[in-house]
Amino acid sequence: MPEHIFTLDSDKRFTEQAQIGHNRWHPEIPPVATVKPGDSFRVDCREWFDGAIKNDDSAQDILDAPLLTVHTLSGPFAVEGAKPGDLLVVDILDVGPIPQEDSGPLAGQGWGYTGIFAKQNGGSFLTDQFPDAYKAIWDFSGQTATSRHIPGVSFTGIIHPGLMGTAPSKELLARWNAREGALIATDPLRVPPLALPPEAEHAVLGALPESERARVGSEAARTAPPRENGGNQDIKNLSKGSRIFYPVFVDGGNLSVGDLHFSQGDGEITFCGAIEMGGFIDLRVDIIRGGMETYGVSENAIFMPGNVEPQYSQWLAFSGTSVTLDGEQRYLDSHLSYQRACLHAIDYLTKFGYSPEQAYLLLGAAPIEGRLSGVVDIPNSCSTVYLPTGIFDFSIEPTAAGPVQIDPGMGAPRASFG
Amino acid sequence: MPEHIFTLDSDKRFTEQAQIGHNRWHPEIPPVATVKPGDSFRVDCREWFDGAIKNDDSAQDILDAPLLTVHTLSGPFAVEGAKPGDLLVVDILDVGPIPQEDSGPLAGQGWGYTGIFAKQNGGSFLTDQFPDAYKAIWDFSGQTATSRHIPGVSFTGIIHPGLMGTAPSKELLARWNAREGALIATDPLRVPPLALPPEAEHAVLGALPESERARVGSEAARTAPPRENGGNQDIKNLSKGSRIFYPVFVDGGNLSVGDLHFSQGDGEITFCGAIEMGGFIDLRVDIIRGGMETYGVSENAIFMPGNVEPQYSQWLAFSGTSVTLDGEQRYLDSHLSYQRACLHAIDYLTKFGYSPEQAYLLLGAAPIEGRLSGVVDIPNSCSTVYLPTGIFDFSIEPTAAGPVQIDPGMGAPRASFG
Amino acid sequence: MPEHIFTLDSDKRFTEQAQIGHNRWHPEIPPVATVKPGDSFRVDCREWFDGAIKNDDSAQDILDAPLLTVHTLSGPFAVEGAKPGDLLVVDILDVGPIPQEDSGPLAGQGWGYTGIFAKQNGGSFLTDQFPDAYKAIWDFSGQTATSRHIPGVSFTGIIHPGLMGTAPSKELLARWNAREGALIATDPLRVPPLALPPEAEHAVLGALPESERARVGSEAARTAPPRENGGNQDIKNLSKGSRIFYPVFVDGGNLSVGDLHFSQGDGEITFCGAIEMGGFIDLRVDIIRGGMETYGVSENAIFMPGNVEPQYSQWLAFSGTSVTLDGEQRYLDSHLSYQRACLHAIDYLTKFGYSPEQAYLLLGAAPIEGRLSGVVDIPNSCSTVYLPTGIFDFSIEPTAAGPVQIDPGMGAPRASFG
Amino acid sequence: MPEHIFTLDSDKRFTEQAQIGHNRWHPEIPPVATVKPGDSFRVDCREWFDGAIKNDDSAQDILDAPLLTVHTLSGPFAVEGAKPGDLLVVDILDVGPIPQEDSGPLAGQGWGYTGIFAKQNGGSFLTDQFPDAYKAIWDFSGQTATSRHIPGVSFTGIIHPGLMGTAPSKELLARWNAREGALIATDPLRVPPLALPPEAEHAVLGALPESERARVGSEAARTAPPRENGGNQDIKNLSKGSRIFYPVFVDGGNLSVGDLHFSQGDGEITFCGAIEMGGFIDLRVDIIRGGMETYGVSENAIFMPGNVEPQYSQWLAFSGTSVTLDGEQRYLDSHLSYQRACLHAIDYLTKFGYSPEQAYLLLGAAPIEGRLSGVVDIPNSCSTVYLPTGIFDFSIEPTAAGPVQIDPGMGAPRASFG
Repeated sequence: MPEHIFTLDSDKRFTEQAQIGHNRWHPEIPPVATVKPGDSFRVDCREWFDGAIKNDDSAQDILDAPLLTVHTLSGPFAVEGAKPGDLLVVDILDVGPIPQEDSGPLAGQGWGYTGIFAKQNGGSFLTDQFPDAYKAIWDFSGQTATSRHIPGVSFTGIIHPGLMGTAPSKELLARWNAREGALIATDPLRVPPLALPPEAEHAVLGALPESERARVGSEAARTAPPRENGGNQDIKNLSKGSRIFYPVFVDGGNLSVGDLHFSQGDGEITFCGAIEMGGFIDLRVDIIRGGMETYGVSENAIFMPGNVEPQYSQWLAFSGTSVTLDGEQRYLDSHLSYQRACLHAIDYLTKFGYSPEQAYLLLGAAPIEGRLSGVVDIPNSCSTVYLPTGIFDFSIEPTAAGPVQIDPGMGAPRASFG
Repeated sequence: MPEHIFTLDSDKRFTEQAQIGHNRWHPEIPPVATVKPGDSFRVDCREWFDGAIKNDDSAQDILDAPLLTVHTLSGPFAVEGAKPGDLLVVDILDVGPIPQEDSGPLAGQGWGYTGIFAKQNGGSFLTDQFPDAYKAIWDFSGQTATSRHIPGVSFTGIIHPGLMGTAPSKELLARWNAREGALIATDPLRVPPLALPPEAEHAVLGALPESERARVGSEAARTAPPRENGGNQDIKNLSKGSRIFYPVFVDGGNLSVGDLHFSQGDGEITFCGAIEMGGFIDLRVDIIRGGMETYGVSENAIFMPGNVEPQYSQWLAFSGTSVTLDGEQRYLDSHLSYQRACLHAIDYLTKFGYSPEQAYLLLGAAPIEGRLSGVVDIPNSCSTVYLPTGIFDFSIEPTAAGPVQIDPGMGAPRASFG
Repeated sequence: MPEHIFTLDSDKRFTEQAQIGHNRWHPEIPPVATVKPGDSFRVDCREWFDGAIKNDDSAQDILDAPLLTVHTLSGPFAVEGAKPGDLLVVDILDVGPIPQEDSGPLAGQGWGYTGIFAKQNGGSFLTDQFPDAYKAIWDFSGQTATSRHIPGVSFTGIIHPGLMGTAPSKELLARWNAREGALIATDPLRVPPLALPPEAEHAVLGALPESERARVGSEAARTAPPRENGGNQDIKNLSKGSRIFYPVFVDGGNLSVGDLHFSQGDGEITFCGAIEMGGFIDLRVDIIRGGMETYGVSENAIFMPGNVEPQYSQWLAFSGTSVTLDGEQRYLDSHLSYQRACLHAIDYLTKFGYSPEQAYLLLGAAPIEGRLSGVVDIPNSCSTVYLPTGIFDFSIEPTAAGPVQIDPGMGAPRASFG
Repeated sequence: MPEHIFTLDSDKRFTEQAQIGHNRWHPEIPPVATVKPGDSFRVDCREWFDGAIKNDDSAQDILDAPLLTVHTLSGPFAVEGAKPGDLLVVDILDVGPIPQEDSGPLAGQGWGYTGIFAKQNGGSFLTDQFPDAYKAIWDFSGQTATSRHIPGVSFTGIIHPGLMGTAPSKELLARWNAREGALIATDPLRVPPLALPPEAEHAVLGALPESERARVGSEAARTAPPRENGGNQDIKNLSKGSRIFYPVFVDGGNLSVGDLHFSQGDGEITFCGAIEMGGFIDLRVDIIRGGMETYGVSENAIFMPGNVEPQYSQWLAFSGTSVTLDGEQRYLDSHLSYQRACLHAIDYLTKFGYSPEQAYLLLGAAPIEGRLSGVVDIPNSCSTVYLPTGIFDFSIEPTAAGPVQIDPGMGAPRASFG
């Protein structure tokens, strides 16, 4: 195990630890530690809601999920000598649930959760079809996940950090706030909201002096979206063995990481859609000086996935086009066509006995692939979603014999504001 | 070789063949042949522009591409006993370029092409950045493609039909025309257009009696978009060994196929973006009676890809978010985020010596993967594009040493209306 | 299709063709054609018994298989400028069953066969356990094989030439004859024989002048074993897209090819164990001058497999050690340990309802993997055989529920001398 | 982390721990713990030489390796209710180097070693060609291994236990001793020996009462070879996610495990050939009652490999036949043909600048594949060894340009008795 430079005590809240992380992006958040190029180090990560979600059979906690507090990030970690314009090379040497703890109240202690946010508190990719809150608990056995709320499936997790990125410069942060504010202004009361403005009250800002907190908290960007600095990209393929290249915007780079996922499908479609957990991540960092210009990487991470992703060789795939459920033709809308593909997959799985919510939760958590298959064939884009057939205990191929019927068990817990 | 039920003579135009296919969707286009469930059969396919694109070093033909004439489809093939509500099972037993002909003026005779359409004649995924027409010719050697217009790469084609589908019912066709007409009406003069209305003059309608042609031609849907019947899905993974399930909307199903691609990247981003070719396809069909209801497949194909796709195990990936190049924040727009990811890949490749057009053409043709990585993290979706590093003759990994410089050769031929 | 330089008429015997191949190795067999480095060309290949094995339900033909006549090789093909000491680079561009012919009496016309040779006529890997002759006929559908003699399985063929190689020099041939003669002399009457000496009567020697035939026939090596020139290596992974490097021993290299297999398991354990067929192969050749010395390749082919091998991701594996069935301990005998692993697999499959012969034939034909797992742990080597679970229509995993029972159908035809 | 039922203190020798394991097979060695079917648990494993091999640049320790003391096994673990005739189902949930310790004097603390045993102390697969002792030290970074003794390569380890198995019954043990004794008797003074007889002096027998030690030690089988109970199979594919089925010969099954490898090539050809290390393994056990008869598994493990093995998609392969280096023809000897294939690979790699020893050590440690390609083509079997090209920092493809020359650095330390 490489040097453990950021540790979390599972018995304490995120804000009560010896080292305090952060939940906002701001250049002034001071580094918790400084490492050298070539260094390897271990970082603990808290699950994104800091323990608010329980291993039980109620979705009340998902309904009430404290979205203002996310994400509980570890860092920032400064890299000695990193300068704006460099590329920060980050190798994910290892990543996993909380080591040495396989039971307990904290996600990552042998279990994790997937949630569908209610439309009035977060929403999701298919929030119009699924306006209420739902939850599924997943148990870990080695790298395998199973759920009492979704019987008949088990799969190998492609464990990864949902969120990793460098600190924005002051200028970049200002740009974020300007453009996102402009979007919000187009429909400020929308539910769910179009974007999330800075919010000082629940901001956690590491070791920032008390005197600066109000100002920085009111400027600091929320961590929900991915942006130029990487951030909450939710790329399931950033798993063990991956090498990622981040643009550097501030001296030291100031890398932060969190939001670990035991598994996730492409898109993380239920919003709380990966199998959320706390755990550890082992990183090694290096620098390519001037790499942003040299390689034309002005923003957003580039990366090389590792070579130990779980292998599946048979898939059942669903396609969708950019026509709304109401029959309205949209112009080349790949977001919509992926929604339609996912809805098709859900419709299909319900024929085997799953509830729509179980199917939706499964697509959020399992290693499904979402592809932009066609993006030019006016007016319809074509997106596709691939389900690995091997994750099911039964055959899901269409045959003349018709679908087998599974016992859906207790189903996925539900909660609503209604 | 299974029975050859639709043959094309490479020396004759599509409309001068013994059997005449079609280039529009309409329920009244009569089947060219009827097969039984369980039957295997071979079908020849003409390249989608019927020979208008030449194996030369000029892009004039791409600039002038006759878009009103596409796609030159083989079929329809009726399946005995198929009824509306059934699922038509189609196995792709084999698919390839024109057999026994490895040179000649027709794409598929040992070569194929990739084009970027000009903004004023078709446009493309990145038409604002690439408003002119470009072309690349690819030479086939076995299943491998190389191009004199894009040096330094070679890859194994994932050969597939860009377009396959069943005939729409009268009602379904009417729905298409209504919704697409409504979209066009929002900006009827847009260049490129939002959608393509029926057009009778260039319609090819198989053996439809002369007396019906004007009416049917004015009703029949253009073949550009994928729709409920499958159609021009441009799913690169529908290659050899795949099994596809199409909804049946008319008696006999009336399956048609065409637009063969020697290779394609996810999205077919240059519009004329696959490696276009004519060739053959061997199919086997079967029926799942009542399968649409039984499996909840009301529209769009579902499919199981084959297990002989070319294998690559190392990838370099680029991410993008839904912020425009001008810095405007859009709300969860996966189409935009994929554009941004592709632009990032292009920017990167130019650092090795490629022109932007070469890079763009390459992304259209090579087996790149486009994934919907994050679709819920308001306001930014995150799309990613994966390039197999093994297709390059040189290393494309970012390193401290910087990119090697290739000789881009003659480059990609260009033509413009300017 | 590249230039067709060696054609076979399916209605004529191998020795009645316009171009006559050969079935022995000898430096004096004249090339049937000469190609240039960089050339691509197509070659037809006859199934190895030249039509003696029928598509029927009797194993009499396997019992009487004319082993003196094999292998019916296409070639030799001289490569202009190739000199002893060079490496001959051979790309397999494509390979498949007889094109345009999917039914007929010749293996390769839509079907192929797997045989277990009787102990008294050829024998096999497990000849002591399976002394009689058996046969299975496989039907091809695209790249998929199924058999009426072995129900419940279907698999994607990894199509390859069992035999390809360069001509031996006079000196090399003399060495072969000396060392194999010495082996035979240790037990000349053994059944099956230890090795096969030259035999002139059934020798086919291409266009060799009549006057030389008796002499050359009495010197020419039989084609059964792989040797320094490549030859009958039966490496299932030499499939489409592979690049092979052969030592050159004579001017022109004089490449020959044949013994096409639709599929094969590692080891080709039933001897007639692949799915045997005739067909075509498209090759491209090149030369690395002086490559034998430069790369230290003094003998035997080296190769790079293609990237379109059928993919399976779940396997059930069996291990064996070098203890005989009678309980005798042998010293690090990997041949024996692989026999024991295969016998374990056969024992296992019979529990599902297969006859031992069906299981044995299946292991010969299906894409099983045979690995030398441990070769140093005195006194036991450990070999393993991996069965892809996806080739079975039913689950073959061991479970508490016990094995499902399949209907073995008519079984595998048998014939014996008894 | 599942319950930790067998712990090892890295600062103490194997025989000084709180729980004492064993290094011999005998039914009377008492279980160190009892688990229930369905239980998951963690077991620490000591590296097989208990710390005798150092992280230094001398091979003296390999020369003097204390072979009488191996293997330091953890266990036995009794499974409640397991009876002779059952199959013991063992899932490998996780396996890795010593957690929380990434530096230190014990292999597994961030590093491991590969050795070539000297002919006079152990020998190896190619001992006639490599009679002296050599060593390579490998450093671990995440799942990646690199060596200062073998520059230019890095690879992802396929971590696995070299040895796992159930206890033999008294009868089975007697059979082992009889048959191995008979083999030894054929050449009792051979160097290296044909097999290893019981040896009481260095026997470690867990908690066996002192009074029984002399007798049991003189009966107990050495752990070097794999046998009916699994044992030292050295199957590299028994990695994370694998499920293994062992025959049960005694009440409780009495499972033992050890000899962890960070990586290994097929065959573990240098004998001390994997990357040896200590570490941990997380297991889950279950029982299939009567499974030996139900599934026909009378001996040796069967198994299903996991789905997270490192993926490589390009390979350079070498073939060999059963002719000795002296030119003697042997009859279908797959052991010999694999030796020849490995020697060919070594010859090849030396052309790039590696010493033969470096190449040999690399083949022992890297994820090479060894296949029994042809086992019936009298008189030559054909074995093949596949090297993943991606593990090299430079291209190892044969080209007209010839091999690049690497700097072999200090080379592999050597020691000899001479």
